[in-house]
Amino acid sequence: MATPPARALRIVIVAPDTLVPEADDTEAWGQAERSRSLRIGLLEAGYDIVAVLPPDMYLPDHLARIQPDLVIVDAESQARDTLEHVVIATRDERRPIVLFTNDDDTSHVHDAIAAGVTAYVVAGLAPERVKPVLDVAMARFKVEEGLRRELADAKSQLQERKVIERAKGLLMQRLGLGEEEAYARLRRAAMDKKLRIAEIAQRMLDAADLLG
Amino acid sequence: MATPPARALRIVIVAPDTLVPEADDTEAWGQAERSRSLRIGLLEAGYDIVAVLPPDMYLPDHLARIQPDLVIVDAESQARDTLEHVVIATRDERRPIVLFTNDDDTSHVHDAIAAGVTAYVVAGLAPERVKPVLDVAMARFKVEEGLRRELADAKSQLQERKVIERAKGLLMQRLGLGEEEAYARLRRAAMDKKLRIAEIAQRMLDAADLLG
Repeated sequence: MATPPARALRIVIVAPDTLVPEADDTEAWGQAERSRSLRIGLLEAGYDIVAVLPPDMYLPDHLARIQPDLVIVDAESQARDTLEHVVIATRDERRPIVLFTNDDDTSHVHDAIAAGVTAYVVAGLAPERVKPVLDVAMARFKVEEGLRRELADAKSQLQERKVIERAKGLLMQRLGLGEEEAYARLRRAAMDKKLRIAEIAQRMLDAADLLG
Repeated sequence: MATPPARALRIVIVAPDTLVPEADDTEAWGQAERSRSLRIGLLEAGYDIVAVLPPDMYLPDHLARIQPDLVIVDAESQARDTLEHVVIATRDERRPIVLFTNDDDTSHVHDAIAAGVTAYVVAGLAPERVKPVLDVAMARFKVEEGLRRELADAKSQLQERKVIERAKGLLMQRLGLGEEEAYARLRRAAMDKKLRIAEIAQRMLDAADLLG
């Protein structure tokens, strides 16, 4: 048995299929067997499976309430549909998503990764290897989130800068101010109104549009 | 045998150890066995192993000359040192890096991924599973490169914008021009000198610094 993680990760499994299929459905039995082995591996490694949920319209609400550390998609036969639900459910609040599949067809991998899948584990996984795979997925998620945050910051800085510069230009032209004076005036107005400079600049531009 | 990829990926393996170790070194024999199995898996899946290189100071030159599609680090016992060489060798020209290791200790995974490792494959891999793992790594590399390019673009746009706005402000203040006139003047100067507007703006600011 593997050493349990310092604090047990809280995991939600999203799976469309029951673990007890019809007696004559051999494919479903094979999949149920693999799903069971995955859950045993997770429990043996000390993870906390807080819920097993179907991929339906309630998934976003469930995830928002449960706030899991990681979402596992265990949905071999309906991987695309299930994944779509999970991606939508984690769009606003990103979470690590690990997709387990036995499908050798990797043609959709690019789309899945672009859509937010953190780890894409092809082919069955021995129970004792579950922990290293999830460790890697958590590490990757953190690094990617850092990159995404940096990108969002750079974009919003760029956007704010455009707005501030336009407002400054307007003040310089209309009032014949120098650049520093125009900026000082924006800053003073922002302090007076308890707003950020970009916000006061946007209001000024909106007003200028209205007044012509 | 797996279907070969449409165009065979050109792979460089970076490995510190010989496949024929001392007779009494059982650990090295175990590792050599796994390395051999990995190479067989690559060849059977139709990949083109264009070189096997040691992690030394010549690695950057070798990679620059060979231009492989993907670099595999197969260096269980010296993973950290080897990886460091590979990361340095791909810093300026990024390539997908896949690290194979049997080491269960995943405490360095975060650093490895932050340093540029695309896939971190813990524990031995059956030869027939090599192809899906590399497919996933290639897909991930493309998505990450897209993100990195977007970030670099946003940052350089922000930087250029700052320079252009400062130059525009200087023109507006010194020559009493409106914002559009100031921008038009910069654009005309850029066209005359066959430079980008950000370049001409930077030159103008440098000159203004000198002349006071």
